[in-house]
Amino acid sequence: MRPSGRAPDEMRAISIETGFTKHAEGSCLVGFGDTRVLVTASVEERIPPWLRGKGEGWVTAEYSMLPRATHTRGQREAAKGKQSGRTQEIQRLIGRSLRSVVDLRKLGERQIVLDCDVIQADGGTRTAAISGAWVALRLAVDKLMAAGAISDDPIEAKVAAISCGICSGTPVLDLNYHEDSSADADANFVLIEGGKIAEVQATAEGATYDEEGLLRLLRLAQIGCAQVFRAQDEATRK
Amino acid sequence: MRPSGRAPDEMRAISIETGFTKHAEGSCLVGFGDTRVLVTASVEERIPPWLRGKGEGWVTAEYSMLPRATHTRGQREAAKGKQSGRTQEIQRLIGRSLRSVVDLRKLGERQIVLDCDVIQADGGTRTAAISGAWVALRLAVDKLMAAGAISDDPIEAKVAAISCGICSGTPVLDLNYHEDSSADADANFVLIEGGKIAEVQATAEGATYDEEGLLRLLRLAQIGCAQVFRAQDEATRK
Amino acid sequence: MRPSGRAPDEMRAISIETGFTKHAEGSCLVGFGDTRVLVTASVEERIPPWLRGKGEGWVTAEYSMLPRATHTRGQREAAKGKQSGRTQEIQRLIGRSLRSVVDLRKLGERQIVLDCDVIQADGGTRTAAISGAWVALRLAVDKLMAAGAISDDPIEAKVAAISCGICSGTPVLDLNYHEDSSADADANFVLIEGGKIAEVQATAEGATYDEEGLLRLLRLAQIGCAQVFRAQDEATRK
Amino acid sequence: MRPSGRAPDEMRAISIETGFTKHAEGSCLVGFGDTRVLVTASVEERIPPWLRGKGEGWVTAEYSMLPRATHTRGQREAAKGKQSGRTQEIQRLIGRSLRSVVDLRKLGERQIVLDCDVIQADGGTRTAAISGAWVALRLAVDKLMAAGAISDDPIEAKVAAISCGICSGTPVLDLNYHEDSSADADANFVLIEGGKIAEVQATAEGATYDEEGLLRLLRLAQIGCAQVFRAQDEATRK
Amino acid sequence: MRPSGRAPDEMRAISIETGFTKHAEGSCLVGFGDTRVLVTASVEERIPPWLRGKGEGWVTAEYSMLPRATHTRGQREAAKGKQSGRTQEIQRLIGRSLRSVVDLRKLGERQIVLDCDVIQADGGTRTAAISGAWVALRLAVDKLMAAGAISDDPIEAKVAAISCGICSGTPVLDLNYHEDSSADADANFVLIEGGKIAEVQATAEGATYDEEGLLRLLRLAQIGCAQVFRAQDEATRK
Amino acid sequence: MRPSGRAPDEMRAISIETGFTKHAEGSCLVGFGDTRVLVTASVEERIPPWLRGKGEGWVTAEYSMLPRATHTRGQREAAKGKQSGRTQEIQRLIGRSLRSVVDLRKLGERQIVLDCDVIQADGGTRTAAISGAWVALRLAVDKLMAAGAISDDPIEAKVAAISCGICSGTPVLDLNYHEDSSADADANFVLIEGGKIAEVQATAEGATYDEEGLLRLLRLAQIGCAQVFRAQDEATRK
Repeated sequence: MRPSGRAPDEMRAISIETGFTKHAEGSCLVGFGDTRVLVTASVEERIPPWLRGKGEGWVTAEYSMLPRATHTRGQREAAKGKQSGRTQEIQRLIGRSLRSVVDLRKLGERQIVLDCDVIQADGGTRTAAISGAWVALRLAVDKLMAAGAISDDPIEAKVAAISCGICSGTPVLDLNYHEDSSADADANFVLIEGGKIAEVQATAEGATYDEEGLLRLLRLAQIGCAQVFRAQDEATRK
Repeated sequence: MRPSGRAPDEMRAISIETGFTKHAEGSCLVGFGDTRVLVTASVEERIPPWLRGKGEGWVTAEYSMLPRATHTRGQREAAKGKQSGRTQEIQRLIGRSLRSVVDLRKLGERQIVLDCDVIQADGGTRTAAISGAWVALRLAVDKLMAAGAISDDPIEAKVAAISCGICSGTPVLDLNYHEDSSADADANFVLIEGGKIAEVQATAEGATYDEEGLLRLLRLAQIGCAQVFRAQDEATRK
Repeated sequence: MRPSGRAPDEMRAISIETGFTKHAEGSCLVGFGDTRVLVTASVEERIPPWLRGKGEGWVTAEYSMLPRATHTRGQREAAKGKQSGRTQEIQRLIGRSLRSVVDLRKLGERQIVLDCDVIQADGGTRTAAISGAWVALRLAVDKLMAAGAISDDPIEAKVAAISCGICSGTPVLDLNYHEDSSADADANFVLIEGGKIAEVQATAEGATYDEEGLLRLLRLAQIGCAQVFRAQDEATRK
Repeated sequence: MRPSGRAPDEMRAISIETGFTKHAEGSCLVGFGDTRVLVTASVEERIPPWLRGKGEGWVTAEYSMLPRATHTRGQREAAKGKQSGRTQEIQRLIGRSLRSVVDLRKLGERQIVLDCDVIQADGGTRTAAISGAWVALRLAVDKLMAAGAISDDPIEAKVAAISCGICSGTPVLDLNYHEDSSADADANFVLIEGGKIAEVQATAEGATYDEEGLLRLLRLAQIGCAQVFRAQDEATRK
Repeated sequence: MRPSGRAPDEMRAISIETGFTKHAEGSCLVGFGDTRVLVTASVEERIPPWLRGKGEGWVTAEYSMLPRATHTRGQREAAKGKQSGRTQEIQRLIGRSLRSVVDLRKLGERQIVLDCDVIQADGGTRTAAISGAWVALRLAVDKLMAAGAISDDPIEAKVAAISCGICSGTPVLDLNYHEDSSADADANFVLIEGGKIAEVQATAEGATYDEEGLLRLLRLAQIGCAQVFRAQDEATRK
Repeated sequence: MRPSGRAPDEMRAISIETGFTKHAEGSCLVGFGDTRVLVTASVEERIPPWLRGKGEGWVTAEYSMLPRATHTRGQREAAKGKQSGRTQEIQRLIGRSLRSVVDLRKLGERQIVLDCDVIQADGGTRTAAISGAWVALRLAVDKLMAAGAISDDPIEAKVAAISCGICSGTPVLDLNYHEDSSADADANFVLIEGGKIAEVQATAEGATYDEEGLLRLLRLAQIGCAQVFRAQDEATRK
């Protein structure tokens, strides 16, 4: 039995509330259990300098935790004057994950920025962010298509992410904060609907695992992402 | 008639949803119309270096806008590496306003940090932040008192804030973004329940007003803050 | 009797020495008692990016204290690597105050930067800075008009500023450092010759005041600014 | 056939020159083909604040590219005033990888900093850095043990890293810069001698792979790391 | 004949006005012709961390140009967020120069900070700053000695500085801005009363000189510093 | 006898290994005894903004110490977020020194950046850097001339640098770290082949010297630079 009382392959409740803010072209408040991330998709009719004149667009992401999203208050990065290595690592991961399912040529010379702000943290904030970012992106692209700005859909598939870990020797799915801090190994999988892998980040600080362990974590991730894909589907079908 | 269709002395709907996040000692999501600010109060059992050994506590605030709280996306201050002058000005105002109703000796040697993060902006974010910060502070202090950490209530009164302005020659209350950007003069009043003034910041860029105009704005603010005091009361009585 | 021995409505001696530096288009060393601020006005034949093509000019200000302007040495902001919130708040106030009396269209597509460097501080540095900045601006604009670069005078009126406060229950005018640090409430008024108000910033940290108190402070400010207007007049008539 | 002319499972020449600098407690110049990284291990008799009093040591890493390690000169991070997200991501990876084979309690209350400076880059700089860092760490720990500062060896195993990728549909080992920039998917594996995995970072920007692909990359990595382990062995046996 | 109309070995008028600000323990406004630098000496009863427990004091300096000290306005370093290389080079030079005549053991465990702020620049700001800093230091040390905080005078000699250069082939003394910008070579000498040299910084960008040229510049500097020593003497004897 | 066992006018062994890295247009690893500096010359087909349209090129330098180039590890400047005053002073000196022998008009509208990274420090890093930078520059210019990008050689002469100092009263040449830290006075000379001086930086913190001392140091420098010129010649003739 896991500390959370869940079965090893049991996800927490997923919630996706679309249209959470009125200005953004796409937005949602995504929840994986008590983890809640506000994602907005902003369409900008300009692209980074290094892409100019290539007829392509860009999708990028920024990530931040509100200071009191966590058990004890963290210092505000804007006050510290720089983003931590962890923040930068996560926002680069979110951007890459979303770009893995977007045809940037079909997007045209515009940029979509996905802002992922963690309102409340209880483990898995980066995977919730990626999963919610797909929804916000989908909504923003739908708006561009409805307005005739884009004719061919640049989104080729759904992408979702989930964390897995090994707790007391047992591979488990979707760790909350309490489980995460005592896990022997920790892995984040970004999967694409249809069985493809976009990204694997598996780390074992203090403990290690082998090929068999990696595969078992991947299979849990496939179970988890299947549920996220359904939730994304419901959220965007409305 | 105002652009918003409201009467000159008519406020927007005020909403205060307490307990919006689970980790903070006090929290609320405060809404003045479409402006929504998430406020958390964090109790820290330490004080700034310059207060050590004085037997007093401290109350301070930080303020930030989520990048897409506004019509067009603003650059994230953590990414720019510094807080703007506007941000610093506002967070200093929030801190001063709350301290004007707190007896810091009764608080004991601890600090309460009020984080005000604007989720959605439509004018009046600083006044909504001050008004909500009082609620979050009240909840955090109630928790300290319930736990026996504080015996005498350090909060001496309610404090609330509202913006007023002169639009096409008419003094109006609680400007939304559209009204604010076309106002001739703009004033923020921070008032204390019982008729006292904590702070006045009245500015006329491009236009000016006289003593009479200042008084008319102050009276509108008194009307507005009376409604905020009632909303604060309801939110914290629950 | 005030700590300074002055009557409640008595200003300190005002001194304005124009032409204090030779390179600037306009400059003065302004003194309110022992507070001395060097102000230079620099005319630049370019405007901020967001004003380009609008046929308007810009007036802006920067403010700084020399490290040993004060009783104990403060750290140099250039060495710390950032301007404090207080500095930014003050320089924004100076800029707004001066723009409230300038017709930016008549200025043409150029910028005037008002640098206010506090040589010696004894209370009221921001109000001395605003009052001196008007003189430096006036001199710089006179030079532009004499050179034929501007035909219509863009300066519509004089603007001056003064601080007031409530000390031991009595409203007093033009506080020095000693009075300021023990004041119950503190207010800075920026007034325009002819009875108009450009800006009010009234704060009560620890104490509060009411509508009556605000009015009494405003009336003291009117007395004080009348004297500043005369000093500005003499300084620029020479 | 690969662009480099190598077989899919063929490594570039590995070179490890120990004692490259005289001041560091351990150092080497590690080469994977034309990629050359200078690694120094510095023993410091102090630990990070958050570890004080726990009776444990710490191992951490910093990473940097010399400006002209690459085809075109990159801006110096010290001149830009901040480390890029990429730099921080890599140095965090190096630190975690080394800590996965160190018993921090046996290290005692001291810190070993591994500085990895890329002298010349041709793909795989982070994996060369990890592989060389183990050598520098081994040498520094040997020196501590020879001096009697440590009695039990805190290093539990060898750790090495290698990059793999999918080029034109074929999984290949140890990509050089040319291969890396055209790869469909890119993965870095950090393996521990004896069959354990310390870290997997597999990314597919633009393309994707499946479970089968991940396994094939892992097997290439096992082939590559076996060769690195031998080179580490030779370098430290001298 | 020099552009300035002066003879090759002719200094500009030197002026030293002591007590220019009231808070600093020592202060003066030093003028070399139109170059004017405000120097304050601040005594702090603490020393840098690396000197603690050695029974010695410290003398250090900071240097800054007001934005409009020059012909065209320069950007404020506090606004840019960092001090330029030039600023740092100059303030290091000033500190070293003053320390060359101070016995830091006799100063006791305290620090004297010399703030040199250029009010108006017309060539030779660093040499005027060094020459004035000696006066401010002398006044601050006199005050410490008068108060009995120091018994033995820690100042061993006078130190002064002057710039020389080669203009159109002729070595000249004390260059103004116009001469400086067209000089073939430029040298700053810091000399100690009695014939000793504290520092030489001789640069030839674009042109070069030989041993003979260096000696001729040194002799001009000796002529110039003799006059500065007299001015320092008069200023501090009052 | 010197601490190093060398005669007063005896240099350490000079080594210059050209082509140390493969990407740079010119590069060398220069050694003055145990001091080793990697210098790369990067040709960039663009110039700084303030040079545009003048038909001239630019030569500039950057300098850095690897963290463990020294006896104890120094903090990485990229991690601290700024370059120290010492670093900036040195890189400005390197740039000026090289420009003193380059005809920038003959270079054409391009920039050559000399990156000097200290791999191992044992005194004299800046003089080794200047001496090696000339070699890297020579190689890069040769490549430009061979490619026909430049027709007239812009390098007018060799430039080299050496440090001298006064140790226990004796002027000595080319100080190592141990000698440097106990020297009474310290001077760096940048000399041009043929007897000209490009730069002198002579400092006496704690001690002082006179005209005679300065001349004796200069003569030692002439002896030392003659040897560096020969080594530069050999290195670039190959």
